Amino acid sequence: MAGIKFYTSPLSHNSLRVDMVLAEKNIEHEPIVVDLVKGEHKVRPSLIVHTSPEMLSKNPWGKVPVLECPHAGPMYESRPIARYLATVFADKSPSLLPSTDKYPAFARFEEGLAIEAQKLDADVTQLFFQLTHAPLMGMIPDQAVIEKSRKSVAATLAVVDGILSKQKYMGGETFSLADISFLPEFLALSVTGEDEAIKANPNVKRWWEEVSGRESWKRVSKPVWDVYTGIVAQVGGGK
Amino acid sequence: MAGIKFYTSPLSHNSLRVDMVLAEKNIEHEPIVVDLVKGEHKVRPSLIVHTSPEMLSKNPWGKVPVLECPHAGPMYESRPIARYLATVFADKSPSLLPSTDKYPAFARFEEGLAIEAQKLDADVTQLFFQLTHAPLMGMIPDQAVIEKSRKSVAATLAVVDGILSKQKYMGGETFSLADISFLPEFLALSVTGEDEAIKANPNVKRWWEEVSGRESWKRVSKPVWDVYTGIVAQVGGGK
Repeated sequence: MAGIKFYTSPLSHNSLRVDMVLAEKNIEHEPIVVDLVKGEHKVRPSLIVHTSPEMLSKNPWGKVPVLECPHAGPMYESRPIARYLATVFADKSPSLLPSTDKYPAFARFEEGLAIEAQKLDADVTQLFFQLTHAPLMGMIPDQAVIEKSRKSVAATLAVVDGILSKQKYMGGETFSLADISFLPEFLALSVTGEDEAIKANPNVKRWWEEVSGRESWKRVSKPVWDVYTGIVAQVGGGK
Repeated sequence: MAGIKFYTSPLSHNSLRVDMVLAEKNIEHEPIVVDLVKGEHKVRPSLIVHTSPEMLSKNPWGKVPVLECPHAGPMYESRPIARYLATVFADKSPSLLPSTDKYPAFARFEEGLAIEAQKLDADVTQLFFQLTHAPLMGMIPDQAVIEKSRKSVAATLAVVDGILSKQKYMGGETFSLADISFLPEFLALSVTGEDEAIKANPNVKRWWEEVSGRESWKRVSKPVWDVYTGIVAQVGGGK
């Protein structure tokens, strides 16, 4: 499938879900870096994300990531794009999806995706925003939100540690899209120094060390890591 | 597949995702209503949810819904359970999933699921908690959280209205699991009187009227609707 365009930005850690599927499967594509700071219209005043009429025509939220695939038109949101690519390129190694007729593997995989998306994402997003985008925009970080999110992230990772004491990966016994889905959250926690709950939970720590050691992750995450390291240094955020 | 057990509660509107897949496909199962108020251990002090060692052995978060399926062991979280059932019983009519080789349909379906899970869920959950569980627990509802969530829900539904001006359902041109995934959110908004944004957006309103008119929804949602109507009356919540 030639002609895939991937609109992204090093300010979008969530886009790394898509980067990882593209990298793991070595899918040919054209990356297009969108300037989120100099865009024409600020549609989400809660984030330092600007956009353009062009991006709004591809994604009603005007954000990245957006994938243009000749067979499906423009797609938006990191999780559906990542799952779409993992499914459409299922035959390309490595497989990032369980076989749906292997019931226990499929069940653990779906649970893993949901734990990231419903139990961790909202808290990490709040914490990350308060420690990076908020001060950049001249806002005073909300300490109550920071404390609440930090506590909730720690509680979630403690449960995840129990799950990872029984299975090797977030989605079961093999590396999958469920692991990829967690990676941007762990980057956000690590780059802001909010990784105490990662280090305190031995199985979570073991998982993070192994998965973040993948060549694909080291390569695709570097631009995002570098940008946010700079932001954290600039705003004096992080612990 | 005989021997499916479904642990649920009329206090869990999220469980309705599972109820709907079971009802639409007429899947044989044994419903087990868990008493969330009288459980032995309160593991989530932020919700009026108690649990028991038995439930904790099936779900590390101790909550419902839980599905016990002979082939996959206990599963938790409404979205993965619903997708699991829709996939395992894909041959049972109606199909609630698009064919993954119909690229545009598959793309729209994945987007629809993600909009509910990542754009709407956190705000509706906060709003619903403040208007129902918080006052029940003797807490004073946080007006700032209510205002912020209400505004965010309205902004999201305005974008969803644009999407539904171009496609008939949340996941594309046919009724699917994506529609089912939105239904508990719409119930939560409606039962608390927070449905202004539903009524104000013509395409959202058209979708809600059609989908909530399904016999399956009328039947499975009634116990939840009745319980929360009572709670809202008791705490004087809602608008």
